[in-house]
Amino acid sequence: MAGEHIGIKKSNKDLAIIYSETPCIYAGAFTLNEVKAAPVLWDEKILQQSKMVHGVVVNSGNANAVTGTQGMENTQTMASLSAKAVGKSANEMLVCSTGVIGVQLPMDKICEGISLVASKLDDSPQSSNNVAEAILTTDTCIKEIAFCEEIGGQTINVGAIGKGSGMIHPNMATMLAFVTTDAKITQPMLQKALSKCINTTFNMITVDGDTSTNDSVIILANGQAQNLIIDKEDENFSKFCEILEAALKHIAIVIVQDGEGATKLLEVQMSNVLNFERGKSLAKSILTSSLVKTAFFGEDANWGRILAAMGYAGVPLNSENISLTLKSKSGSILMFEKGIPVHFDEDFALTILKEKEIQIIVDMAEGTEIVRAWGCDLSYDYVKINGEYRS
Amino acid sequence: MAGEHIGIKKSNKDLAIIYSETPCIYAGAFTLNEVKAAPVLWDEKILQQSKMVHGVVVNSGNANAVTGTQGMENTQTMASLSAKAVGKSANEMLVCSTGVIGVQLPMDKICEGISLVASKLDDSPQSSNNVAEAILTTDTCIKEIAFCEEIGGQTINVGAIGKGSGMIHPNMATMLAFVTTDAKITQPMLQKALSKCINTTFNMITVDGDTSTNDSVIILANGQAQNLIIDKEDENFSKFCEILEAALKHIAIVIVQDGEGATKLLEVQMSNVLNFERGKSLAKSILTSSLVKTAFFGEDANWGRILAAMGYAGVPLNSENISLTLKSKSGSILMFEKGIPVHFDEDFALTILKEKEIQIIVDMAEGTEIVRAWGCDLSYDYVKINGEYRS
Repeated sequence: MAGEHIGIKKSNKDLAIIYSETPCIYAGAFTLNEVKAAPVLWDEKILQQSKMVHGVVVNSGNANAVTGTQGMENTQTMASLSAKAVGKSANEMLVCSTGVIGVQLPMDKICEGISLVASKLDDSPQSSNNVAEAILTTDTCIKEIAFCEEIGGQTINVGAIGKGSGMIHPNMATMLAFVTTDAKITQPMLQKALSKCINTTFNMITVDGDTSTNDSVIILANGQAQNLIIDKEDENFSKFCEILEAALKHIAIVIVQDGEGATKLLEVQMSNVLNFERGKSLAKSILTSSLVKTAFFGEDANWGRILAAMGYAGVPLNSENISLTLKSKSGSILMFEKGIPVHFDEDFALTILKEKEIQIIVDMAEGTEIVRAWGCDLSYDYVKINGEYRS
Repeated sequence: MAGEHIGIKKSNKDLAIIYSETPCIYAGAFTLNEVKAAPVLWDEKILQQSKMVHGVVVNSGNANAVTGTQGMENTQTMASLSAKAVGKSANEMLVCSTGVIGVQLPMDKICEGISLVASKLDDSPQSSNNVAEAILTTDTCIKEIAFCEEIGGQTINVGAIGKGSGMIHPNMATMLAFVTTDAKITQPMLQKALSKCINTTFNMITVDGDTSTNDSVIILANGQAQNLIIDKEDENFSKFCEILEAALKHIAIVIVQDGEGATKLLEVQMSNVLNFERGKSLAKSILTSSLVKTAFFGEDANWGRILAAMGYAGVPLNSENISLTLKSKSGSILMFEKGIPVHFDEDFALTILKEKEIQIIVDMAEGTEIVRAWGCDLSYDYVKINGEYRS
C-alpha cells in the first residue's frame, strides 16, 4: 500500500494504491444513488465480470461524478496507469474517487501521481496509515481497524479502513471503506458476508441524510490464510461474518462520531420492535430529523421531537404503546411511558445530555426484535463546513 | 377575532379566537404524521360529522401532542369554554395548538385566557393582526393576506393567516393556516378546492424535512357573499380555486422565506418533466438536502450536490438528459448541460448567489410539465434556534 499528496487537494495526501501481489477475489457494495460516479460504474462492471483483482487506486478531493464520458475515460486511465505500474492489466484494478462532484479530474497531476505512489508500495503499518489518510475529505481523523482471529483453528486477518464525514446516509454502502483479508473464501460467500454485514452496520448510520454518488465498500480476499475454504453457510462462515461485522461496525460508528461538525454520537436502540425493517425506518427517521439533531446539540431534553420524527417515518404507529428513555454514562431517565409524558428532573436530564455518547432507547412493546442505528447531532460547524466546502 | 397574551409563552400573544356569528361550512387538511396532536384528532372528528362551525380557538407555545387522554380532555375543554363564551356548543368550535411537544397545557391560564380573549372579539383589522401574532412560535413575522375578487359578477372576500418557520415539511397540510371567506360554496366543493390548492402550495414547501404533529389548514366559509352557490366543478369553481391557490401560495412562500434561520428563499423549478409526482419527488429531494441548503447559505455554486440529491430522490434518473441553471435577479448561469459540467465564471455565480431569492432551474428534457417547490437555506441560526428552543 501507499498514499501520498499529489496536488488534487491544496495540501494533505490525496492518492493511494492498495495492492496485493496475490490475485484477490473481491466483493463490493455500491451506492443506490441513481447518479453514480464514474469509478462506481467501473467497479460494478468488473464485479459483474467476476475477475480476480490486484487492488484499488483511490483519490480524494474530486469525486469524478456527473462528469460524462470524459469522466469514464479518466477512470479507465487511472485503472490502466496504476495496473501498468505494477505489471497488471487495467481490469485487475478497481478505482474509487471521493470529493467535490461535477469537476473533471486533473489528469496531469493524477498521471504523475500514480507513478509516484506506485514507486512507494510496501507492507509497512505507516503505509496503511498513509492510505487511510489519503482517502479523507472533511474527516478529522483516520479510520482503521484490524482483527486477527481464528477460524477452524487457523489464524485469519481482517483489516479495514474507511472515510466519511458528510453526505453520509448510506444505502447499501457508505462513502468509502476498504477491507482486506487473507481468509480463504469463495466469491459468492464473500459477497454474501459483505451484504449481510452492511445491513447492520453501514446501512444503519446517517450524518446528514444525503446519500453520496460515490459510496463504495470493497473487500479483497487473497486466500493466503490456512483456514479450510469457506464455501457454504456453516459455522466458519458465521465466524467470518462476526469478525467482518465487528470491523465494519467500528468503521461505521467512527464515521458518524467524526460526522461533519458532530459533537455527540447518538445511538438509537429500538427495542421490542415487530421486525428489523420497521425498527430501521423508525430509528433512521429519528436520526435524520434536523430538529432532533439540533436539540441534542443544544443539550435540550426536547424528547417530543423524537416522537414527531417517528410519526413521519412512513410506518403505522400507536404512540400509546411507546416508552422512551435517554441514557448516557451519567445515568438514564424515562421521558415518556406508554403514551404518557413522564415528569422528569431537568437538571438530571442535562447531566445525561452533556455526555458525548447518548443512547435513545425506544421500547415499542410490540415484538422481540432489537434494532440499533447511529447518528450524530447537527451543530454550527456542520453549516460552516458545508457552506465553505469548495472554497 | 381576537388574540392576546395569556401566559403560555413568557411574552408575546399566545391565544386567539376566530369567530363568525353566522355558522360556517368548513374544510380542513391535516398532518399525515402518525402521531397526531389532540386538537388535530378533535378537528378531524368534527369534520367527519360535517357540522357547521362558528370558529376556531388556537394557542401557541404548546402543541398538546403526545399528551395522552389528558391532552384530549384539555382540547375538549378549550372547545367548550370558547363555545360557551360565545353562546354556542363545543362541537361548533375547532381547536388548534402549536409549540412544544409532550407537555400538558397549563389549563388554569387557558381557562382564564379564553374568557379574556372572548371578551375582546371584534371585526377590526387590528384584531386580525393580533390573531396572526398569537399563533406564531419561532416565526419572525406575521403572515396574512386578503383578496377581494369577483365570481360571476359578485364580490367575494378571501382572507388567510398562517404560521410556521420550523418543523416544516407539510404532508397534506402545513403548520397552521386559517382561511376565511364569505363565498357561497357547498362543503364538498370547499373541501375539493382546499385539497387541490394544497397540492401545489403547502405540499410544495420545506424548511427542515420535519413533518409536524399539528399541521392544519382550515377554511371557514360563511356564505354571506352574493355569488351563485358553487356546487360543481364549473368556471366559478375554477375562479374560486385560483383565488384560494394565490392566498395559500402567498402564505406558503412567506413561511419558507421566514424559515428558521433562513437567509435565502430557494425556488426549484423542474421544467420539461414527465409528470407532477416525479417533479415533486425530485424538487423536494433537492430542497431537503442539508448539503444543498448549506451550499446556498455559503453562496457556494457547488451544483454537484443538486445532482446528488436528485439521485437519491427514489425515482429513476438519467443524468445525460439533465441541464441545470441557477438564476436570480442578477442574472442566470448554466452549470450543467445534458450530462456535462459547463465551465462557468465563479465571480458571476457569486453575484447571482448573493441575492436573497434564487431559482434552481432543472430542465429534465423528458416531458412538458413544470413543477415548482420552495425551500430555504440552512444557516447557523437554524441550529441556534433549535438547539435552544425550549429554554
